[in-house]
Amino acid sequence: MNSSPVGLHRVLEPPGVLPQAARRLDPDPRIAEDEVRVRLERLNLDAASYRQLHTAHDGDPDAIRAEVLQIIRTRGKMHNPVTGSGGMLIGVVDEAGPKSPLGLAPGMRIATLVSLTLTPLHITDDLRRWDGRGEQVPAEGHAILFARSIAAELPADLPAGLSLAVMDVCGAPALTHRVVAARTAPVVAVIGAAGKSGSLALAAARRAGAARTIGVVPFEAEAARLRAAGLADDVVIADARDPIALADAVGEPGADVTVVCVDVPGCEHGAILATAAGGTVVFFSMATSFSAAALGAEGLAADVTMLIGNGYAPGHAQMALDLLRTEPGVAKIFKERVEE
Amino acid sequence: MNSSPVGLHRVLEPPGVLPQAARRLDPDPRIAEDEVRVRLERLNLDAASYRQLHTAHDGDPDAIRAEVLQIIRTRGKMHNPVTGSGGMLIGVVDEAGPKSPLGLAPGMRIATLVSLTLTPLHITDDLRRWDGRGEQVPAEGHAILFARSIAAELPADLPAGLSLAVMDVCGAPALTHRVVAARTAPVVAVIGAAGKSGSLALAAARRAGAARTIGVVPFEAEAARLRAAGLADDVVIADARDPIALADAVGEPGADVTVVCVDVPGCEHGAILATAAGGTVVFFSMATSFSAAALGAEGLAADVTMLIGNGYAPGHAQMALDLLRTEPGVAKIFKERVEE
Repeated sequence: MNSSPVGLHRVLEPPGVLPQAARRLDPDPRIAEDEVRVRLERLNLDAASYRQLHTAHDGDPDAIRAEVLQIIRTRGKMHNPVTGSGGMLIGVVDEAGPKSPLGLAPGMRIATLVSLTLTPLHITDDLRRWDGRGEQVPAEGHAILFARSIAAELPADLPAGLSLAVMDVCGAPALTHRVVAARTAPVVAVIGAAGKSGSLALAAARRAGAARTIGVVPFEAEAARLRAAGLADDVVIADARDPIALADAVGEPGADVTVVCVDVPGCEHGAILATAAGGTVVFFSMATSFSAAALGAEGLAADVTMLIGNGYAPGHAQMALDLLRTEPGVAKIFKERVEE
Repeated sequence: MNSSPVGLHRVLEPPGVLPQAARRLDPDPRIAEDEVRVRLERLNLDAASYRQLHTAHDGDPDAIRAEVLQIIRTRGKMHNPVTGSGGMLIGVVDEAGPKSPLGLAPGMRIATLVSLTLTPLHITDDLRRWDGRGEQVPAEGHAILFARSIAAELPADLPAGLSLAVMDVCGAPALTHRVVAARTAPVVAVIGAAGKSGSLALAAARRAGAARTIGVVPFEAEAARLRAAGLADDVVIADARDPIALADAVGEPGADVTVVCVDVPGCEHGAILATAAGGTVVFFSMATSFSAAALGAEGLAADVTMLIGNGYAPGHAQMALDLLRTEPGVAKIFKERVEE
């Protein structure tokens, strides 16, 4: 098989598009020289995808299971056509092509860090061990990784669920670290600071040399949780959808770096207004509206740099796992969040 | 009147939101100490807004005029509730409050560079001089500028239509210049290079020290136009919605800076794939999807910085007008585009 590092050779229809945009992928178990085949252990459906399936089938577990199977059979990948989202998987490396650059060897237990929406997938057990009642799907079958896929070995010292939760948001601390380290002792505000990506972003900001960190949370219970974690120099309460309240909470002249980790729509103007002139806003929330951010900054005559949070950076999973291991506050928040 | 620099005091409903998010603004002609009142000359409706009105009323000019009047009367601003867009205006400064920081004086002929969606507006002539057949709306009445509004004096040496067309896209060359100047002799690709923002971005990239500029256009007629303008070192043809074709056209190892100026959806993956590792993509197109960009970069394991094109930067209008005056290629493209 003639292979492409981004998996073009696995696209069946329409031809010429990238795997994520494809209607159907080819999950043939025979790998190219730069591919890796993974024996499935578990799929982690994206929360939005599972919620949609649950609603569409009135919570009927058999109907949910049947639809997931149907999607994977039809598309050759777990790509929910309604939500457009996928999820991640855990498995064991079965075979690694001699030219694969991923550094994986047979027997390694890994998680994929690229979306299931672009990962060729084949199920052999009809998902019969899955009760259809949650996002965690025990599964038998295989998946294919391309040369430019991303996967990380699951650490032996951490529960798989905890590692997965960290890896799921590991782009946030990596990019936050990079942005903060490029400045001299900046003030950093993290919106949605008591969540998973928020707590990691706070820890990364401190490590990267922030002069002061401000954690913004929506209500007192979250504030108490964040204070207990000790990750922010200041903990403030504000509704991130209220631009004036958010800017007031962060205070004049605004943060040098503002990191948006809260997954509700309508936080763009507040984040811009809470940022000092010459500062940077990093949007990690998938609820971010491109046009609201672009037009908002223009309408406010705000000279701020606005970044689209890229979920990938070299070494991102290792950095996030390292923060979990070495920052008790991060570990505390993750343990609470994962158990919820 | 107690004033806020971003115009909160002009918001009638709902209280507490920014003017752009408001349903209704107060266009009272009495100004606060930091405000400016402008006597209207002409409104320039946003193209998307006019197109929607035209379609909704089957092109009936009287019905279109009546609806624009109705919107302005109801909302106190020209904020199309369907498209969410506004436009700009041209007028003459009537009165400038003693604490206004905008540097405007009575008698100056200006264009506003903030959207009409956040500008208090009052019409006194029922728009009777407008035939309803185009986006240019002769109007009598007044508009209010806040302390943080943006306005630029119309240059005496250029036709107003040309100045407006330049100011409309002046954020693109300003941010392109900043991003390119921050690197050492980068290769810069501009997608949609023969358009207004694209030609300005190319000229700004060259001026900021690009080692090589690549102009990407969709078909041969545009390529001929761009070659004649002499703004790019290389002119290549590719459909920006086809990631593989776009990356191939830009060539290995990709551009260090990729600027997206083409207003069609689905260009995110191509722009990412056409950018070298460690490079930057600047999205100026309002058709950009935040999630397609964020998930696309992750799915491609692309270590690229992605910027949301901010329409504002200090001095952006002057820089763009200067490029128009000093770069014959830019002037040529604008004259052709404005006459179209």
